Parts: sequence; C-alpha cells; structure tokens
Amino acid sequence: MIGLSNYAGVMEGVMNSAEEQQASSPLTNSWSNKQESSENPKSNGVGGFVLVHAGAGYHSESKAKEYKHVCKRACQRAVAQLKAGALAVEAVAAALVELEDSPFTNAGMGSNLNLSGEIECDASIMDGKSLHYGAVGAISGIKNPVLVANRLLNEAQKGKLSAGRIPPCFLVGRGAHDWAVSHGIPSCPSEKMATKFSLSAYKRNKRKMELAETMETGQTKKRRQSSENGNSSGCLDTVGAVVVDLEGNVAAAVSSGGLAMKHSGRVGQAAHYGCGCWAENACNMNTYSTAVSTSGCGEHLIRTMLARECSAAMQSEDAHHALLEAMQNKFISSPFLVSEDRVLGGVIVLRCCRCMETQPSQNIQGILVEFLWSHTTESMCVGYMSAQDSKAKTHISRLPPGTVPGQSLAIEGGVCRLMTVVE
Amino acid sequence: MIGLSNYAGVMEGVMNSAEEQQASSPLTNSWSNKQESSENPKSNGVGGFVLVHAGAGYHSESKAKEYKHVCKRACQRAVAQLKAGALAVEAVAAALVELEDSPFTNAGMGSNLNLSGEIECDASIMDGKSLHYGAVGAISGIKNPVLVANRLLNEAQKGKLSAGRIPPCFLVGRGAHDWAVSHGIPSCPSEKMATKFSLSAYKRNKRKMELAETMETGQTKKRRQSSENGNSSGCLDTVGAVVVDLEGNVAAAVSSGGLAMKHSGRVGQAAHYGCGCWAENACNMNTYSTAVSTSGCGEHLIRTMLARECSAAMQSEDAHHALLEAMQNKFISSPFLVSEDRVLGGVIVLRCCRCMETQPSQNIQGILVEFLWSHTTESMCVGYMSAQDSKAKTHISRLPPGTVPGQSLAIEGGVCRLMTVVE
Repeated sequence: MIGLSNYAGVMEGVMNSAEEQQASSPLTNSWSNKQESSENPKSNGVGGFVLVHAGAGYHSESKAKEYKHVCKRACQRAVAQLKAGALAVEAVAAALVELEDSPFTNAGMGSNLNLSGEIECDASIMDGKSLHYGAVGAISGIKNPVLVANRLLNEAQKGKLSAGRIPPCFLVGRGAHDWAVSHGIPSCPSEKMATKFSLSAYKRNKRKMELAETMETGQTKKRRQSSENGNSSGCLDTVGAVVVDLEGNVAAAVSSGGLAMKHSGRVGQAAHYGCGCWAENACNMNTYSTAVSTSGCGEHLIRTMLARECSAAMQSEDAHHALLEAMQNKFISSPFLVSEDRVLGGVIVLRCCRCMETQPSQNIQGILVEFLWSHTTESMCVGYMSAQDSKAKTHISRLPPGTVPGQSLAIEGGVCRLMTVVE
Repeated sequence: MIGLSNYAGVMEGVMNSAEEQQASSPLTNSWSNKQESSENPKSNGVGGFVLVHAGAGYHSESKAKEYKHVCKRACQRAVAQLKAGALAVEAVAAALVELEDSPFTNAGMGSNLNLSGEIECDASIMDGKSLHYGAVGAISGIKNPVLVANRLLNEAQKGKLSAGRIPPCFLVGRGAHDWAVSHGIPSCPSEKMATKFSLSAYKRNKRKMELAETMETGQTKKRRQSSENGNSSGCLDTVGAVVVDLEGNVAAAVSSGGLAMKHSGRVGQAAHYGCGCWAENACNMNTYSTAVSTSGCGEHLIRTMLARECSAAMQSEDAHHALLEAMQNKFISSPFLVSEDRVLGGVIVLRCCRCMETQPSQNIQGILVEFLWSHTTESMCVGYMSAQDSKAKTHISRLPPGTVPGQSLAIEGGVCRLMTVVE
C-alpha cells in the first residue's frame, strides 16, 4: 500500500511543465481558476472536453516531445469534431485515429510485433449514451483498428441483421479483418504498419529472449518469477481517450498493439469489455456520467476489470479519493493479482454532471468536468483540451522519485466547466 | 418486469419430472430433506458437488432424453474426478469435455456453423481459488476448446515466460489453435466436428437468410427490428458447469459454438471475462464462495456481464431472491439492453459456505451448497450431483405456460450439504 505522501507531492506538482500553458486547476472542491473562458464565441452550443493518453509505461525524455505532440494532435482532432457538432463517441474515435497513426505509440502504425514478427492489434470503443460497445481483437492489416470497433458499435445500434441474427459486438483475427473490408474500411499491408523502430525492437527482443532461454537451463527453469531484465518497460504504450460532449454524453476508447513478443492470437485488455474502456451516461442509478480508458499490462487490467471498476468508483463523492482507493484496492492490492510482483497499469478518467451553482444567466447551462489520471508505471503521457481552449495541454506524469513501479502510484487531475447557451 | 406469480409456480414444481429420483429439496431456509446421506463411505475426505447445463434455449421433447443423458454423463465425470481427489477446476473441465463431446450440444463436436460454414468455438474457465482465468475465442480444429482454456489457466499460474514476458490468458483464432497444438493438445479436422444435424441446420439457415434478404427490398430495409422468424430458438445451447470440491474451492467453465450463422471471427460470451463464467472463493470481502456459468444470446450476456453480476448478487443473504433480482434488474430490465425486445439467456449458480450448525461430531465438517438455475429462454437443461449421490439428477426447466421468452423468467434450485471427516 502506498502512503499518502507518495502521491500528495505529485498532486501538488501537476501541470508544472514548461510547455504547459493555461493549465486547469488541480482537482479541488473550490471553484477558483476554472476554465470558463469562452475564447471562441462560435463554440456556444457545441463543444465538450477530451482527455487522451499515449500510454502508461516508460516514456524516455528523448521521446517526450513526440508523445506530447501526438497527444496534442489527438485532442485537437477530437475538439474539431466536437465543434462541428459531433457526439462524444465520434470525437473519441477521431482522437484514437490520431493516436494510432503516430509511429511512436504502440497502436495502429508502429505497433509492437508479436512472436511471429506480425502486428496484431486490439481496440474497443464504448458509447455512454447508448451503452453500446464494439471491439476487435488480434486484427491484422488494418491501419486504424478503432474504426472497425466503432463501425461494429454503429452497426449493432441499427438492430438485427437479416433473418433475425444478432449483430456481433466483438470480432477477432481474420474474420474481423474481412468484416472491416466488407464494410468499406481499407486493408493496409502489414509491412506498412511496422516502423524502423518497431522492427529493431523486435530484433532486440528476439535476441534477448533467445539469450534468456539459453541461460535458463533445461525444462525446470523455463519460468522466471522475477520481471527484472524483462521487457515490461517501454512496451506498454496502449493509447486511449475519454470525451464528454456538450449534451453531457460520454464515450471512451482504447487501442493497442499489445505486449511485445506476445503469442500470435493473444488478446489484451484493449479488446476486453470492461477492461480497456468504459463509458456510462448518468442515469437514475448514477449521479455522474463516467468514462475511463486504461493502459499497461493487459493481463493485469483484464483480471482486475480495471476500466469498469474505476467507472463504478467514480460515483463516490470525492473523485480523487475514489480513484486513489480504486487503484490501490482494486489494482495494486487486488486479490486477483496476489501472485504478481509488479502490477503495471494506468487509467484516465473523467466524470461530469450538470453544474448545480447559480448560473450567470438562466439561458446558460454548465457541465462540470472532473478529469484524472493515475498510473503505477514509471510514467504516463496525457493531453487534454476543452472546446473553449485554443490549445491542448500535455503532460508526462512520472512516479515520485524513490518509489517502485508496480507497487506505488501517481495520481493527478483537474477540473473544467463547459458552458452552453440554451436557446 | 415479471410478477412474482410467474416464477413462484415454477419454484414449487421443481424436480417433479418422472426421471428425477432423490431430488434435493427446493431452495429453502429450512434444513429438512438435505442430502446428508453418505452412500459411499469411501468418499469421506474427497467429494464435492457439480451442477451442469446443456444450454438455455429451446429443447424439444424429442431430444429431451439426449440432453438429459449428456448432463448426467458430465456430472458423473466431474464427480469421478472429485472422488479421485481432483480440485474443483479439474472437475469442472472434465464435465465440460463430456458436454463438448456430445453431438447434441452447441459446443465442441456438433457446434453451430458460422456464415462461412466453419466451426469456430469459444470457451473459458475460472478457478475460484487462484482467481486465474483462461479463455479461447473463435478457435477452429480443436475438439475440446475448454482444454485449451484450462491449459492457458494452468500455464499462467506457473508465472512469467522467458525474458519476463507475461503469459496470455486469452488467445483467439489461428494463434489459439497453434498454441494448443504446441502444448500437446491434438488438432482435429473441422469436418469431423460437424454433424449431420449441424450441417443440415446450416443449409436450412442459409436458405432462410437468403429468403429473408430477398424479401427485404433494397438497402433501407436491410434491418429487422423484430426477432420473429429469427433463428434465435434452438441455437443457444452453450454448455457449462460449476463445481465445488470438499475443500470449498469453486470453479466454473463454459463452452460454445456460438450463434448459428455468426460472422467469422465473432466471439461470444463464452470467451468473455466476467460474461461466460465466474468463480470466486470466499475471502475477507465475500462470505460465500460463488460460481456461475451462463448460456444464451452472447451479445446480451456480454453487455450485461451477467456471470459476474450474478456472482456478486450471490453475496446477499437470500440466494434465491438475489438471483431473481439480478435476472430481472441486471438482465431483462438492464439499462444496457433497453433497445432489445427479447433478452435471452440463462445461468447456473452455486454458492457455498461452511455449515454453521452444530456438527454431529467435532471431526466432521460440512459445506452447505445452494444451487440455482434461471433462464428467460423457453427452456434450460440442467443436471447435478454430489459425490455422495449414486446418480445424477437431470431436469429440463421450462418457462411457465403463457409467459413470453425474453421477458419472463423461471428460477429453480436446491440445497445440499457436503460432509467430510477431518483427521
């Protein structure tokens, strides 16, 4: 269990990077410094907020700029959609396409190669309004797996297929690829999706594996309980995003090339319902609309069903405290992971509700958005932006010095308020 | 919502089939008529209880005998394992193999064919003791998919792979097949897995689909909101089992050939974590050990995460009432399925705890097992047996006359007590 001091320092230090401008206030119950500026008067009536991540894992200082750039572009793309009147689910898909297209992230282009030297991707998307969900697993030869997941979601919303057949919400492998192509999503040659970086990482990992297997003498010593010298750092850069639109609808999505050197056919949390992403609009049962996207070691995130657990936790009064507790009790100290020495993962979370305070004018409504990220990995790269902002903010969150990845966590966040004119 | 009268009648009528002998008492809080007989004195110290299902769907009277027979054999196989000292997870896998091997069930041999005329199976298994989980999706050419899922579970329990790689818990498609073969599970030619019945059903469904698509003029009418004339009846025979051993460990498993005429690559609830099966031993947080296996329309069971929801509900004091509420509120009336006209599925559930009453002797310990099944489909075929029984009991539960499948439910169950001598 992590002491309070381990994250308090991080919380105070949020948004102090030189690159950040107009940072949202750290999460607090006071309303000072809220993002109420309306820089773009045209955005009244359309708008929203997006929070993205380029993965929980290890982000070297040398590539920090690239990771931040892709987060920025993903935010801008989602906000452009929101300003054009798109719903949250469309905006979140747009953000994911940008994240997948970056050769620096482990999703879409530049994904990790598996044991056979192939790229197989997982992705899923959830719409908090309809509660529909679409996912693809171990899909090859598709540049943007999230678009297939999104199309599955859209098709399922149209109702039954011919002869009363129920449309699928989850497709895998060759069948997923063929379904995508038959629905107008173009195929992309696998060799175009590999990058110089992913190919050299594959060769390096292959050598490392062969060396490890040579050193481990005989059948009895084939397993290693310790993750030291493992490839667990630097390879967990699943990407994701959460969005709320001005109607208060939430959506979440996630996409991943999976663990490096995974077995062919392995499906990680990014394609697992409740594990990779979750989105639920407020309803009779739930005060808040919530959206979550996860990153990290797929098997840990699957077995703890972390996206759904964090979403459920977000119905508590204090969002920050609830997420901290969820990360500690449902992840690091989860009874599902007692045999794991390092529990590696991260989440981005947003929750929102209609503002309760007196509005400046009766025809102005507000949505209060609280957003957070937390990770047990060495670092996590995030970006966020509201439709009222001219620029996205980006940040690489790092564990406090001296803490142990997989056993400690960092948690940070902010608050913003979306304003809309009601005609 | 279903009125109380809709299920009360069914509850009273449990186990009145002519074939049933020595039926357990219907679920009740009184302890009369408990299965305390110890017919096999050798079973002291080893034993347990198994509940299996051959699917929620529609079971014609003409094939009732076959369904009951396979349930009986599955129970006997699990009990034979338990008597030999096997843990719950091994016994549940043994029951599934028997269910998969029957050409009458939609799992393993005799599975539904997909749109391309191929067999692709889903299966998963969960061990309540270690909380480990293994699953395969859209796997072809393997006679017993549950054995691959079980092997994944076993391998994951051994810890990390070479070079610190994390072992997979979920494999799909060709990769799953190849992993199985490389781990000593033999390949089986697909044509051997199809039966005369599954091939003729495929041809019939194909004609029905073509007819439906011809009748549906143009693009705009491609969708049908109503499931009438759909193929939803008779094709939902996912199989599963739940087991408790004499140490009080629980396990659950599920296996399915999936919906008839599904798209290639479609993965249903049987391979979805939290949706197809769930098992959790009692712990600090949970009074009861619980195990659940589901059957029915995969997409409905996925989106409601029914196995895990029922497992969580089973921590309430009154098991029968808790399952009834879960089936009504988390399934039939689930906010995740508001757009569905018929919510089709079924569950088998067991929960157990150490007996609290005074034991006849201090060196005899007892485990109280409560077991239930509930379904919204026209029928569900179940079987159950304790290691103290000489024969399995089987039963085809049917919705009460006049009720509507997908909108009403049946719920039934029993209680038994396992006795063990502590040395």
